Amino acid sequence: MKILILNGPNLNHLGKREPEIYGNQSFEDYSSELQFKFKNAELSYVQSNHEGELIDQLQEAEKDFGGIVLNAAGFSHTSVAIADAVKMISIPVIEVHISNIFAREEFRHHSFISPHVAGIIVGCGLKGYQMAVQKLIDDE
Amino acid sequence: MKILILNGPNLNHLGKREPEIYGNQSFEDYSSELQFKFKNAELSYVQSNHEGELIDQLQEAEKDFGGIVLNAAGFSHTSVAIADAVKMISIPVIEVHISNIFAREEFRHHSFISPHVAGIIVGCGLKGYQMAVQKLIDDE
Amino acid sequence: MKILILNGPNLNHLGKREPEIYGNQSFEDYSSELQFKFKNAELSYVQSNHEGELIDQLQEAEKDFGGIVLNAAGFSHTSVAIADAVKMISIPVIEVHISNIFAREEFRHHSFISPHVAGIIVGCGLKGYQMAVQKLIDDE
Amino acid sequence: MKILILNGPNLNHLGKREPEIYGNQSFEDYSSELQFKFKNAELSYVQSNHEGELIDQLQEAEKDFGGIVLNAAGFSHTSVAIADAVKMISIPVIEVHISNIFAREEFRHHSFISPHVAGIIVGCGLKGYQMAVQKLIDDE
Amino acid sequence: MKILILNGPNLNHLGKREPEIYGNQSFEDYSSELQFKFKNAELSYVQSNHEGELIDQLQEAEKDFGGIVLNAAGFSHTSVAIADAVKMISIPVIEVHISNIFAREEFRHHSFISPHVAGIIVGCGLKGYQMAVQKLIDDE
Amino acid sequence: MKILILNGPNLNHLGKREPEIYGNQSFEDYSSELQFKFKNAELSYVQSNHEGELIDQLQEAEKDFGGIVLNAAGFSHTSVAIADAVKMISIPVIEVHISNIFAREEFRHHSFISPHVAGIIVGCGLKGYQMAVQKLIDDE
Amino acid sequence: MKILILNGPNLNHLGKREPEIYGNQSFEDYSSELQFKFKNAELSYVQSNHEGELIDQLQEAEKDFGGIVLNAAGFSHTSVAIADAVKMISIPVIEVHISNIFAREEFRHHSFISPHVAGIIVGCGLKGYQMAVQKLIDDE
Amino acid sequence: MKILILNGPNLNHLGKREPEIYGNQSFEDYSSELQFKFKNAELSYVQSNHEGELIDQLQEAEKDFGGIVLNAAGFSHTSVAIADAVKMISIPVIEVHISNIFAREEFRHHSFISPHVAGIIVGCGLKGYQMAVQKLIDDE
Amino acid sequence: MKILILNGPNLNHLGKREPEIYGNQSFEDYSSELQFKFKNAELSYVQSNHEGELIDQLQEAEKDFGGIVLNAAGFSHTSVAIADAVKMISIPVIEVHISNIFAREEFRHHSFISPHVAGIIVGCGLKGYQMAVQKLIDDE
Amino acid sequence: MKILILNGPNLNHLGKREPEIYGNQSFEDYSSELQFKFKNAELSYVQSNHEGELIDQLQEAEKDFGGIVLNAAGFSHTSVAIADAVKMISIPVIEVHISNIFAREEFRHHSFISPHVAGIIVGCGLKGYQMAVQKLIDDE
Amino acid sequence: MKILILNGPNLNHLGKREPEIYGNQSFEDYSSELQFKFKNAELSYVQSNHEGELIDQLQEAEKDFGGIVLNAAGFSHTSVAIADAVKMISIPVIEVHISNIFAREEFRHHSFISPHVAGIIVGCGLKGYQMAVQKLIDDE
Amino acid sequence: MKILILNGPNLNHLGKREPEIYGNQSFEDYSSELQFKFKNAELSYVQSNHEGELIDQLQEAEKDFGGIVLNAAGFSHTSVAIADAVKMISIPVIEVHISNIFAREEFRHHSFISPHVAGIIVGCGLKGYQMAVQKLIDDE
Repeated sequence: MKILILNGPNLNHLGKREPEIYGNQSFEDYSSELQFKFKNAELSYVQSNHEGELIDQLQEAEKDFGGIVLNAAGFSHTSVAIADAVKMISIPVIEVHISNIFAREEFRHHSFISPHVAGIIVGCGLKGYQMAVQKLIDDE
Repeated sequence: MKILILNGPNLNHLGKREPEIYGNQSFEDYSSELQFKFKNAELSYVQSNHEGELIDQLQEAEKDFGGIVLNAAGFSHTSVAIADAVKMISIPVIEVHISNIFAREEFRHHSFISPHVAGIIVGCGLKGYQMAVQKLIDDE
Repeated sequence: MKILILNGPNLNHLGKREPEIYGNQSFEDYSSELQFKFKNAELSYVQSNHEGELIDQLQEAEKDFGGIVLNAAGFSHTSVAIADAVKMISIPVIEVHISNIFAREEFRHHSFISPHVAGIIVGCGLKGYQMAVQKLIDDE
Repeated sequence: MKILILNGPNLNHLGKREPEIYGNQSFEDYSSELQFKFKNAELSYVQSNHEGELIDQLQEAEKDFGGIVLNAAGFSHTSVAIADAVKMISIPVIEVHISNIFAREEFRHHSFISPHVAGIIVGCGLKGYQMAVQKLIDDE
Repeated sequence: MKILILNGPNLNHLGKREPEIYGNQSFEDYSSELQFKFKNAELSYVQSNHEGELIDQLQEAEKDFGGIVLNAAGFSHTSVAIADAVKMISIPVIEVHISNIFAREEFRHHSFISPHVAGIIVGCGLKGYQMAVQKLIDDE
Repeated sequence: MKILILNGPNLNHLGKREPEIYGNQSFEDYSSELQFKFKNAELSYVQSNHEGELIDQLQEAEKDFGGIVLNAAGFSHTSVAIADAVKMISIPVIEVHISNIFAREEFRHHSFISPHVAGIIVGCGLKGYQMAVQKLIDDE
Repeated sequence: MKILILNGPNLNHLGKREPEIYGNQSFEDYSSELQFKFKNAELSYVQSNHEGELIDQLQEAEKDFGGIVLNAAGFSHTSVAIADAVKMISIPVIEVHISNIFAREEFRHHSFISPHVAGIIVGCGLKGYQMAVQKLIDDE
Repeated sequence: MKILILNGPNLNHLGKREPEIYGNQSFEDYSSELQFKFKNAELSYVQSNHEGELIDQLQEAEKDFGGIVLNAAGFSHTSVAIADAVKMISIPVIEVHISNIFAREEFRHHSFISPHVAGIIVGCGLKGYQMAVQKLIDDE
Repeated sequence: MKILILNGPNLNHLGKREPEIYGNQSFEDYSSELQFKFKNAELSYVQSNHEGELIDQLQEAEKDFGGIVLNAAGFSHTSVAIADAVKMISIPVIEVHISNIFAREEFRHHSFISPHVAGIIVGCGLKGYQMAVQKLIDDE
Repeated sequence: MKILILNGPNLNHLGKREPEIYGNQSFEDYSSELQFKFKNAELSYVQSNHEGELIDQLQEAEKDFGGIVLNAAGFSHTSVAIADAVKMISIPVIEVHISNIFAREEFRHHSFISPHVAGIIVGCGLKGYQMAVQKLIDDE
Repeated sequence: MKILILNGPNLNHLGKREPEIYGNQSFEDYSSELQFKFKNAELSYVQSNHEGELIDQLQEAEKDFGGIVLNAAGFSHTSVAIADAVKMISIPVIEVHISNIFAREEFRHHSFISPHVAGIIVGCGLKGYQMAVQKLIDDE
Repeated sequence: MKILILNGPNLNHLGKREPEIYGNQSFEDYSSELQFKFKNAELSYVQSNHEGELIDQLQEAEKDFGGIVLNAAGFSHTSVAIADAVKMISIPVIEVHISNIFAREEFRHHSFISPHVAGIIVGCGLKGYQMAVQKLIDDE
C-alpha cells in the first residue's frame, strides 16, 4: 500500500521551534522511523507552506496512493479550498494534529477539513501519524 | 474584446467529481464551446489552485483584457487578498458560482469578492459563464 | 414560452427615485424593450407592494407560465412566506436584484428566497432581467 | 361554541405540494371531516396569504367566536404585527404547526406568536387542528 | 400645510386594549382633538393592518402632503419594504412610537425605519403625534 | 395499548410549588384521573430527578410500551443524552410541557428533544398529557 | 415650572465642530432663545464632560426642578451609572439626541438611559430640546 | 497494564440502533475482540447512562488502572462535571468518538472534555477504541 | 438551627487535587472545624457526583433544615434542573464557590442557580462556607 | 486593622430610593453600626459618583489601609479603568453587591472587577459589607 | 512645536506595578528623557484618572498645541465620549499603547478612539511615545 | 544590521491604485528613500502575492536578518499560517499597516499576526515603515 503523508505550513520547522507544543524531533527523522515500522507499506512525505501546492498534491494523490495522512496545520482553520479538495477525492484521508488543538486558542478548535475525512487524531504527538498510517493499512 | 475567464481551486476537476453539484462536463470542453459561441470575442482561460497566482493574474489582466469572469471557488469565502485585488483593478469583473451557494453550507453564503464586482451570477450551472461573457460584451 | 416577471415593493418607483442605485428608467419602459427583444416569448409583468399579492401570483403562475423572474426587493430579506411559495412551485424561478445587494447594508446580504431558486443574478442593473429571461428560454 | 380556524400563507396548497412534509389531504377536505367530528361546535375556516388580512380576522374574531386555532405558517417566524394582534384579543388562541418545525431550518424554531397563546401543538400533522379544537371546547 | 398621519397594525384598537401600555383613548377621538389644535394645518388619518397598504400610502403621499407622521407599529421592527419606501420619498417623515419601545421586548428596540426619518419621538404617549405635527409645521 | 408517562426533574413536586406556573394538582392525582378516562389503555407513570434513570427508562420502554409521553422538564434544555435516547427508539414519543415555555426565560425556548419526537404539546397545562395519550391511541 | 437642561460630553463644542452632524449654533445661544420662548418656565443649563458630575446633577435636581431634559451624548451608550441615577429620581426626564443616532455607528443605537425616561426625542436637531421642554410643561 | 474503557449514555445500544452512524456490532462483542488483540493488557469495560456514575468511575479509576479510554457520548457536549473529573485525575485519558462528530449537528462539535485529555480519536468507528488502547500501552 | 451543606461533583476530591485552585484541606476535615465553630447550629454535610441526587436532597431538605449552603460545582453552569429545584423550595439557599470562577474559563462565569438564591459567595476559599453558614444563622 | 469601604455611583442615595431592591437604611447609618460591630478595626467610608475619584482612592489606599471593601455599583459593569486599578494594588479587595445582580438585567451579570478580587459577595443585602470586613480581618 | 502627551487612568503608577507588562520606569522620568531628546519641541505631560478631565484637556489642547500623543489606557476600550472629543479636534492625535493589547484580554482589542486618529503605535513599550512625538514633528 | 521588509498581496500596486487610501508613491521608490535614510543598516525588500512565499521568507529570514518589518496586507486578517510562522521565529517582527485599518471594514480590525509581534504601527502611511526600521535599529 502506498500512503502519502502531507504536511502543511511551518511543519518543516518541527523540532526546531516551540518544543513545548510540538516536541523536538524533526519530521524528516520521524518519517524515517515511520517507514521502518511499516515494512509492507510505501510512505511518501511532502511538506509545503503553500495552500495551492497542498491542493495540487491532494488532486494528484489519487492516481498513486491508497490513502493520505493530512496535517494541514494553520490552513485547517482557514482553507475552504483544501477542504473542497479533500471532499472531492475518493481515497481515504486521515486528519492529524500533533498538539491538542482544543486546549489552544479558540480559532484552532474548528477545522474546515474534519467533516470530510475518514478519521481524526488529535493531540497524540508525532505518534498520531503512526496511528493514522496503521488505520489506513488495517482498513485497506 | 478580450476576456479572461479565471477559475479558482478544484475547478480543474470539474466534470470528474461531484457531478450532482457541478455537472459532468470539464471546463476545458465547455470553454471551447464558449469560444465557439462568441465569435467576436477572444476568451482566455486560466485555472489555478494557488491564491497568489489568481492575484497575479488579476493584477496583470488589466493590460490585456477588457473584462474578467471570476469564479474564485473556495477562495471566495476566505480571501481578503483576492477581494482587494478585484477592488483595485479598473476593468469590470463578473463573479460566477456554478452551484447555488446559498443552498449549501452557511460558510459559502458569504463572499469577500461580491461587494467589488460588476455583477454576480449564482446557481445557473456552467451557463453562468456564458451569461457573464455576454454581459461584459453588451456593456463594452 | 410564457414568462412572468414579478416585482416586489417600491419597484413601481424605479427610475423616479435613487437613480444612483437603481438607474433612471422606469420598469414599464424597460419591460416594453424586453418584450421587443424576446419575440418568441410572451412576457407578463406584475408589480405589487403587498407580500400576500406576490404569494397569490406565485401560486397562480404555475398554471399559465413556464418560468418566473422574481425580484422580491425588500421582502427578499424578511419573507419566509414568499420563500415557502417559491419552494412549493414546480416551474423554475430566477431571482434578480438590480443593485449589488452585497455592497449595501448587511441586512440585504441574506435572502430567504435564494436557496429555492434556479439561478440568482445580482448587480447587473435592469439587464439582469434580460439575462434571467434568456436563461429561462434557453433551459426550456 | 363557535371556533375560527385561521390558516396563513401557502396553506391553501396543502395536499398539493410537499406531501412528505405536509401530507396529501387538502385543508378543505380535512375541515369537513373536522366539522363532522365536532357536532356541537360551529367551525369557520379562513385562509389568507395576506398578513394584514390575518390581523383583520383576528381583530374581528372576538365578536363572533369563542376561540381561535391559528397556524400562521411562514408569518409565525417574521410577524410582530400578528403576534401583537394575538396578544390584544381576549378569546383563547391555540397555535398549531402541522410539521415538526423544530426538525426543520433554524429560522422556523422561533415563533413571535407563541408567548401569547393558550397552547401550542407542533408536529402532530393535521390532527393537531382536531386536538386544538378539542382543547378549546373542553376549556370553555 | 397638509399632513398625513399614518398608523400601522393594531393601532385601530387603541384605547380598547392594553391601556397600561397604550392609554385608553381611541385614535379617532385623539385625531379630532389634534385637528382642533392645529387650525392652520390639514390632517389626514389613515390606519392599516396591511404592510402593502402602508407602502402604497407612503408612495402616494408625496403628491398631496407636505409631511408624514408614521407609526408603523409592529412593522417597524420587521419591514425592510416600508423602510425602503420611506427612504425613497422626499417629504419629511417623523417616526412616532406611543410606548417606550426601549423598555419593552428586545426585538422592539430596533426599527428598520429610523435611519431614514427626519425625527423620532418615543414613549411620549399620544402626545408624540402632536409633537411630530408641530415639528413638521415649524420646519416647513 | 400500553403507554409510559415519563416525567423529569421536580415534577414530583407538582401541585405543591409555583401553582401560578404549574397549577395545584399533584401528578399522582392527575394520573389516576387520566387512567380513568382511557379505559382501554394501560398507563404507567414514572418520575425521576435523575437524567440517567430517564435514559434507562426510555431504552427499556420499547419492550413493554407502544408509546411514550415525555416531559423531561429542565433536562429538555440541557440533555443531549436524553435526546439521543429518544432518537434511538422506535416507538412514538410525544413531548409535553405543562407551562408555555416560550413565555418564560430564553433558555427554556430550546429543547434538544423536540427534533426527534412525533409531536409536541406546550402550554396546555396538565391537559397536555391527556391530549398526548389520545394522540398515541388514535395513531396506533 | 423649573426645568434643568443637562448636556453631556462635548456638547460645549456645539456649533464649533462637525456642523454637518450638529448644526452650527452654540448651545449657549440656543438656550437663550429657548428661555425667551418659554416665558413662564425657568430653564437652567448645565454641561459637563464628567460622568460623575452629571450623576451629581441628576441626584440634586429633584430638590429644585420639576423636570429634566437630558442629552448624555457619548455617555448614553456606555454609562450604567447615569442610567441608574435617572431610574432613581422621581421627576420626569426626557432624553434628547440632536442627530439621528440610528443613522450613525451601530454602538450609538443603544442607550442605557432610554428604558428609564418619560420620553425620547431623536434626530430633530436643537429643536428637540424645545419639544422636550414643551412636553414637560404640558404634562405638569 | 490495566485499562478502563468507559462508555457514556446510549452506547449500551450500540449495534442495535442507527447502524448507519454507529455500525452494527455490540460493544460487548467488540470488547471481547479487543481483549483478544491485547493479550498483555487487562481491559475493563463499564457503560453507564448516569453522568454521576461516570464521574464516580473516573475518580476511582486512578487506584486500579494505568489509563482510560473515554467515550462520554452525549455528555461530552454538556458536562462540565465530567470534564472537571478528567482534569483532576493523573492517569492518561484518551477521548474516543465512534462517528465523525464534526460531520453531524453543530452542538456535537464542542466537547468540554477535549482540552484535558492526552489524545482524541474521532470518526474511526469502533477501531478508535483499539487505537486508543494501543496508544496507552505504547506510552506506558 | 439545622443547616445542610450540599456539595456537587468532584468536591469529594477537595484537598487531593489541584491545590493551587482549591487548597489542600479535605472537606471532611473542614466540616468538622465548621461544626466546631457553630456550636448552636447543627450542620449536615452531603456530597454527590449525581445531579439527580442533589435534586432529591434539595427537595427533601425543606422538611428538616432551616437553610442550605450549596456548591453545585460543575453543575452550576449546566443544570436547569437543579436551578428549578432551588427556585421551588422555600428555605434560604446560599450559593458558594471556593475559587474565583470569574477568573477562570468563560463557561464558569454563568450559573443557572444564582438568580434564585439568597446570597452568593465567590472566591473566598473554604471560608466561604463559614460565611454562608453565619449568614443563614444571622438571618434566622 | 484599617479598612476602606469604597462605594460607587448612586449608593449615596441608599435607603431613599428603590427600597425593594436596596432596602431602606442609609449607608451612613449602616456604617456606624458596622464600626460598632468591629471594635478592633478602623473603618473609613468613601462614596463617589466619579469613576476617576474611585481610581484615585484605590491608588491611595495601599498606603493607609490593609484591605478594601469595594462596591463599584454601575461602574462594575463598564469600567476597565477601575478594574485595572484593583488589579494593580497589593492589598486585598473584596467586591460586594447589595442586590442579587444575577437576578436583574443581563448587563449587570458581568463585572470587569471580579477577576481581580480576593472574594465576591452578592445579594446578601447590606450584611454583605459586614461579611466582607470580617473576611478581611480573619485573613489578616 | 508644542506637543501634549496625555495619559489616562493608572498610568501614574507606571514603573511601580506590573513591570512584566509595563516596564519599571516611571513616566515622569521617561518624559524628562523624552524632552531631552526633542530639543526643538516643547512637550507637556498630563495624566488623569478622570475621563472628564481627559476630555477637557483634549478640547483645550487645540489652542495651545500642534499635536497630541494620547494613551487613554482603560478608557480606550469603553469611552465613546473621549473618542468623540478626539474626532472633534483638528490637530493630529497619535494613539499609543505601551503593551501589546492584542496579546492580552479580548476586551482590550477594541479601541473606540482608533478610527479617529492619525496613527496608532502598539506594543513598542515607552519608546512608542518617542515614535509618536517624532511622527508629529516630521509631519508638521 | 540587516532588516527584511516583507510586503504581502497587492502592495506591488502601491501608488498606482486607490491613492486616497494608500498614497501615490510606489514602494520601490519609497524603499530607495528608506535605504538612503538608514545608512548603517542594510534593507532588503520582498513583496509577494503568495501566502506560502511569505511563510518561506519568514522561515528563512532568521539566518540572514536581525529583524523584519511585515505588512501582510489582506493576509493579516485571514492567515493563521503566517501568524504561526511569525510566532515561531526568534528575531523581532514589527507589523505595519499603511492605512488606518480600524477606520475601514470590520474584517480589517482583526489581525492574526498582532499577538506575536514586537510592535504594531497603524495608519502612519509609508512613514510607518521608517518608524519600524528605526525601532528595530534602536532596540538592537
